[in-house]
Amino acid sequence: MRTPLLLMATIFCQLAATAQVDSLHAYRIQQFHHLALGENYGYQQLVALANDVGPRLAGSEGGAKGVTWSIATMKRLGLDTVFTQEVQVPHWERGAQERGVIWHGKERIAIPTTALGGSVGTPEKGLRGKVVEITDFKQLDLLGEKQLKGKIVFFNIPMNPNFINTGFAYGQAVRQRWAGAIEASKYGAKAVIIRSVTLRQDDNPHTGSMSYAGVKDSIPAAAISTNAANQLSKLLKDNSNIEFELWMACQHHGMVTSHTVIGELRGSVHPEQYLVVGGHLDSWDLGDGSQDDGAGIMHALEVAHLYTKLGIRPKRTLRVVFFQNEEFGLQGGRRYAELADSLNENHYFAIESDMGSGIPRGFSFDTNSERVAKIGKTVGPYFEPYSIYEFKSGGSGADLSPLNKDKILLAGLRPESQRYFDYHHSVLDHISSVHPREFALGAAALASMVYLIDQLDLAD
Amino acid sequence: MRTPLLLMATIFCQLAATAQVDSLHAYRIQQFHHLALGENYGYQQLVALANDVGPRLAGSEGGAKGVTWSIATMKRLGLDTVFTQEVQVPHWERGAQERGVIWHGKERIAIPTTALGGSVGTPEKGLRGKVVEITDFKQLDLLGEKQLKGKIVFFNIPMNPNFINTGFAYGQAVRQRWAGAIEASKYGAKAVIIRSVTLRQDDNPHTGSMSYAGVKDSIPAAAISTNAANQLSKLLKDNSNIEFELWMACQHHGMVTSHTVIGELRGSVHPEQYLVVGGHLDSWDLGDGSQDDGAGIMHALEVAHLYTKLGIRPKRTLRVVFFQNEEFGLQGGRRYAELADSLNENHYFAIESDMGSGIPRGFSFDTNSERVAKIGKTVGPYFEPYSIYEFKSGGSGADLSPLNKDKILLAGLRPESQRYFDYHHSVLDHISSVHPREFALGAAALASMVYLIDQLDLAD
Repeated sequence: MRTPLLLMATIFCQLAATAQVDSLHAYRIQQFHHLALGENYGYQQLVALANDVGPRLAGSEGGAKGVTWSIATMKRLGLDTVFTQEVQVPHWERGAQERGVIWHGKERIAIPTTALGGSVGTPEKGLRGKVVEITDFKQLDLLGEKQLKGKIVFFNIPMNPNFINTGFAYGQAVRQRWAGAIEASKYGAKAVIIRSVTLRQDDNPHTGSMSYAGVKDSIPAAAISTNAANQLSKLLKDNSNIEFELWMACQHHGMVTSHTVIGELRGSVHPEQYLVVGGHLDSWDLGDGSQDDGAGIMHALEVAHLYTKLGIRPKRTLRVVFFQNEEFGLQGGRRYAELADSLNENHYFAIESDMGSGIPRGFSFDTNSERVAKIGKTVGPYFEPYSIYEFKSGGSGADLSPLNKDKILLAGLRPESQRYFDYHHSVLDHISSVHPREFALGAAALASMVYLIDQLDLAD
Repeated sequence: MRTPLLLMATIFCQLAATAQVDSLHAYRIQQFHHLALGENYGYQQLVALANDVGPRLAGSEGGAKGVTWSIATMKRLGLDTVFTQEVQVPHWERGAQERGVIWHGKERIAIPTTALGGSVGTPEKGLRGKVVEITDFKQLDLLGEKQLKGKIVFFNIPMNPNFINTGFAYGQAVRQRWAGAIEASKYGAKAVIIRSVTLRQDDNPHTGSMSYAGVKDSIPAAAISTNAANQLSKLLKDNSNIEFELWMACQHHGMVTSHTVIGELRGSVHPEQYLVVGGHLDSWDLGDGSQDDGAGIMHALEVAHLYTKLGIRPKRTLRVVFFQNEEFGLQGGRRYAELADSLNENHYFAIESDMGSGIPRGFSFDTNSERVAKIGKTVGPYFEPYSIYEFKSGGSGADLSPLNKDKILLAGLRPESQRYFDYHHSVLDHISSVHPREFALGAAALASMVYLIDQLDLAD
């Protein structure tokens, strides 16, 4: 591409000509975008979080460091109030680097392996067994105890590449991670290994939480990379006697105290009403959690920064919430909702960013589609200059889900999803995966939505 | 992000329920997307082009290799006809790696430097001079010959970060590259160095074509990285005696023969009418040209592949065109238009992909906005399930620009622009910058537009 004349023009100047928009509001939204793109405070803070704190697994030392860093950062930003909510979170430790090995006769193939979050470890000398591949949960019932007892069950259910929104493909494939151990242990399997839940073909295993709900004897559960899953599957086709050996040193250490971190910018008209903008402070431990959910909390912090830097006061009190332990128990989100309820707080609107730093495509609202269509019709023209077109009915975010959606309008930022699961819960979830401008545009979009909902009283 | 229930659903199933779409056409478009995402033939070919051919500067050995590779690849795909159009292109050689040095008193700071395409070299022993920084072309007139003669003019005009479409910011900033030497030489400058035209802050210089139109004595022109430009600017503020020294071995070797490569899939109803889908085969030489414009030609090739693999015949003859030397003279595009005219060919529609491999956001049409609105209204509902919403009046692509837009509907694919200029004309324009799914979605969007224009006779 070479010639400037051939490029499409962006359309700031057309804003004023658009009948449906209030020119002051349109100007504010343009200010949000210019300041976010020009200064990118949120991205600078995300770089600092990644470098100075790094991974923030709830209950870990990094998790605690994340809390201290967040309090200090919010105070430095000059918010009116900064406080915390105490929560009890599990303290699970990965321990020494996991190892996985395929035994192909006497050949030994080292496999990129990671414990799933919450898994028990293996015996110190490891655990070895024949492998049974499962590509559909129904196969477990068909094979039964006779063919599964004492085996290592290998769940190999790829994400479906056909979905345009990769989140939907993730939703279909993630059951193997969440429920694989539960289902396989019913038939006496001695361990499970799963295909990493990602669309990318590479050598990075992806972790994530798993459950033992209703299980008597917990069995170790690990993920292997997508390349390794393909390799193992291929080997099994030729030789059903393939064995897998697994070493995992992970351990549970009970519950420990941690905190959700909250900062407020007092509202000018209805200070008793709250606008929540948040994400989760905790992350997995393989990368530095810049995508999940460093980007989300720094999006939220940038919203407060844009307001303060531009000298704009929200009508309602803006609450920036860094929820604790979304990944591993949702204690922060649950506790926040309990307190909101018991303190009789008046929440007007709550929005979460927890789908990474990609270019913003739209928003979803946890309410009926008629209401969403009405909101979309009002806000759509303000977002068009920024190529944001999607206002859909759907979930908000895990941390907001314990709130009462009948009383509070809940929403989520929806960034482009193509790259998100490439990074998700793996070593690739790292600051290097965050594009500064895409991040800034997400933050500006979030600020714009909060601003419009507040100014135009759209959650009434 | 954890919980699948919270994700927005994609809406394939809603397709049939949408009144404005023909269900066969909607199904074809879904097939295009599924096949592109599932098999990603185009991306596989792009990997092969990057690895087996690499950079393809017109007139170079790589350029010739690109032609041979393209003919073979089109033949292997089983197109009905594969042929070439001969063009004369300049043979410019970069020669040995350029070197740039800031002399800060006796301190010597090595600077990432690249010759601009078409520049003359420096004397073998290099060229050294005081530096005058220019941040606006008007300053040249103000400074005049008195302050510019014998100096090295340093154009330091950053891309404006405020534009959402980065192409527009590029259009504003690229004049320093294109016309910097022309304007500075009027006042007797001995060389120009420019700030690389990118929004990214890094150490990679970006090349690109420059002109000596109307210039009597050609002066060397180079780009330095954005980090280096910031550094040099800062040093100049403290010390106006800063000097820059430059070594460039680039040389012109006259014109050589090269080729545009064309493959056809014969139309079933109007074989005498042409649907052109293309990009340019040539690239700059610093990276491997996977973005500019390897992605574009492989998008185009994927269109033909999707048709053949799905057994769909276009009504009109589909022409996949790999234009030669867009970057450096546009000879391929000009020759194509000349021949179309002299052979009295009936071109119905032509579309180009030359803005990289990003997620497709829409299309621009080189026609009046009423006509575009009409097309958009018809095709919009088919693209909505793929989150494509933009159908705008604007340019098509440089290679198509010599065609007669009063007779032929010209269009361009518009991918997301945030990352494009990070790579553009630099070492980062490399296969590793191409996201396989984003690429596939671009190819499927291109195929869908060609299909709809053809099936619904939208260019009548």
